[in-house]
Amino acid sequence: MTGAEEPEEMIVTPWKVSGDVDYNRLIERFGTRPLIRGLLDRLGRHAGHLHLQLRRGIFFSHRDLDWWLDMYEAGQPVGLYTGRGPSGPVHLGHLLPWFFTKYLQDAFGAELYFQMTDDEKFLIHPDLSLDDTVGYTYENALDLIACGLDPEKTHIISDVNNIGHLYKLALRVAKRVTYSTIKAVFGLTDSDNIGIIWFPAIQAVPCFIQSAREGRNVAVLIPAAIDQDPYWRMTRDIAEKLGYYKPAQMHAKFLPGLGRGGKMSASMPETAIFTIDPPEAAAKKVMSAFTGGRPTVREQQELGGDPSICTIYAYYYYLFEEDDAKLAKLERDCRSGAIICGECKARLAEIIKRFLADFQRKREKARDLLDQFLLK
Amino acid sequence: MTGAEEPEEMIVTPWKVSGDVDYNRLIERFGTRPLIRGLLDRLGRHAGHLHLQLRRGIFFSHRDLDWWLDMYEAGQPVGLYTGRGPSGPVHLGHLLPWFFTKYLQDAFGAELYFQMTDDEKFLIHPDLSLDDTVGYTYENALDLIACGLDPEKTHIISDVNNIGHLYKLALRVAKRVTYSTIKAVFGLTDSDNIGIIWFPAIQAVPCFIQSAREGRNVAVLIPAAIDQDPYWRMTRDIAEKLGYYKPAQMHAKFLPGLGRGGKMSASMPETAIFTIDPPEAAAKKVMSAFTGGRPTVREQQELGGDPSICTIYAYYYYLFEEDDAKLAKLERDCRSGAIICGECKARLAEIIKRFLADFQRKREKARDLLDQFLLK
Repeated sequence: MTGAEEPEEMIVTPWKVSGDVDYNRLIERFGTRPLIRGLLDRLGRHAGHLHLQLRRGIFFSHRDLDWWLDMYEAGQPVGLYTGRGPSGPVHLGHLLPWFFTKYLQDAFGAELYFQMTDDEKFLIHPDLSLDDTVGYTYENALDLIACGLDPEKTHIISDVNNIGHLYKLALRVAKRVTYSTIKAVFGLTDSDNIGIIWFPAIQAVPCFIQSAREGRNVAVLIPAAIDQDPYWRMTRDIAEKLGYYKPAQMHAKFLPGLGRGGKMSASMPETAIFTIDPPEAAAKKVMSAFTGGRPTVREQQELGGDPSICTIYAYYYYLFEEDDAKLAKLERDCRSGAIICGECKARLAEIIKRFLADFQRKREKARDLLDQFLLK
Repeated sequence: MTGAEEPEEMIVTPWKVSGDVDYNRLIERFGTRPLIRGLLDRLGRHAGHLHLQLRRGIFFSHRDLDWWLDMYEAGQPVGLYTGRGPSGPVHLGHLLPWFFTKYLQDAFGAELYFQMTDDEKFLIHPDLSLDDTVGYTYENALDLIACGLDPEKTHIISDVNNIGHLYKLALRVAKRVTYSTIKAVFGLTDSDNIGIIWFPAIQAVPCFIQSAREGRNVAVLIPAAIDQDPYWRMTRDIAEKLGYYKPAQMHAKFLPGLGRGGKMSASMPETAIFTIDPPEAAAKKVMSAFTGGRPTVREQQELGGDPSICTIYAYYYYLFEEDDAKLAKLERDCRSGAIICGECKARLAEIIKRFLADFQRKREKARDLLDQFLLK
């Protein structure tokens, strides 16, 4: 609710996302393809329903999803890969693609390799030790498991502790990738450390690990936020030289934070809802969130609010209002001034409190299941 | 026995050694210290005798050997580290520092970590697969074991198969080393692959692995050929930041090949004696070796030969004439023309045949011992 500001330059890299993210420009800049109706319908047909994140364009772009669906429909083996950089507790923005990954796993009965890049997070964060990042691997794994993935078909990889499973494939990737490429694709510089320059080879490995373990070529689909795209551009360039398929991708938008503009980020904890937040504390964050409301109740009743810039509306849209008709009504009521921010926030705060209480129960249960999910 | 040639520019890097190697200039260029009499005497005192390679200046330079001996004499824990790039069969040039390492292990009762850089050799050689280089690791290990090292105190590391033991330490090293440093120290360029840029972090690990495994700081000495020095310059720069001692080093000269000039190199198999050469084939290579002799027997008897450029003399000097008085007589007899190349070669050929037959027996026995030597 501040005055007009210059739009910030858009930066979207694996290590920094800032500015006003224009997703259409990203499709152009990264050379991906928009997720069109025909593809959505094919996904929906296999799943039995169209996921909220597909209906609402949260997954908005892809590479070779059509090919991946062709492979599945032709009875060829397919797999899933996504991951997490374990540098702190998990927030709702992280859960977003994981919920969607569960939908894909259920729909396609696919194995999921889930990579915890505890090596990368150690290499990139001056203040994190390996004990820190490996510790987060196993803490964050509880969140993943709480999303309801199949223990029979899910393999959580700690780069650090499972390096024995990864190193040979990473070496085969690394031999094909020059520093020039890394510089161009990731914007790394000569003063970056040699670990972070090597790391893209490690992040490429789960694209091929199922093929290597099963001794047959598996078509892999990666559902992930769009900032990870540079890894897959690099990986796609060398996949066939190694005898594997190029991984297909689906790209998600970022869940906004609770402040004005910007994605939800652990570096701004007051605007992020962590899965381990006490529900009451989370509710308080919601009550202080940036909205599309007017300075006074009276103005809002007369002029209406603006859901397009409202973080509260965004949470209904991205996660918490499954019913499209109810969402449309909420938007109308906001624009007309029929609902004011206080009620709308209070209702979301209640929903999030219930969500967290339930999620935290599942997360605690996950401690007993953890071992079943770890890569063997 | 060809005419005068322009001296080639001296190149000494971990991946290339060529030109006329001037060891005094290397001491200056690399900033190491000459191995002076007082240090030799200290080594000899602990060992009970002064090794041929010390008496004859084959190990010629060091860093912090005095400190390492201080530590040993003060009852502090000391260790040894050396290694091999397994890209083919082992030749006599490789054995040279291994024989010396056995002498040090016996003298100081030290643990030895021996690194087989099967990852590096895969990354640097376009034509080698991981199966090739890992295969050579275990074949080359037989040669190492045949040198008589102590199975209780020797730990052979395959980078590829033992990466689980190495990765955490390598990450800690890598986080401290920028690409700029690697470029300056190793002469790598932007078109080198990201694996070989990362690799120096792996080669640093055995400097610290004994300390990490034993939970106490161990003073490590690395006996190795001088071309490996860039790794230790880099490692010494970051060792103390990681809480470990800087590794000390002893630097060896290169065993010459059997051709004119240059070190023994597996890339010129006709001038290298491999441990798996049939003894008769090795004898033939010796009989065709470049010598310091004259074009005719008569000239040689009149003018004498030049042992300083003779590869046959070099083999007596580096390896096969333990008795200093006999070596001095051989040199005199050569210079005076009292001995001609044919006899001198034939005698060395016989010695090498006997050496190989004996070494090959030990090497076959090593197959049964291999498992005791592998890092657990």
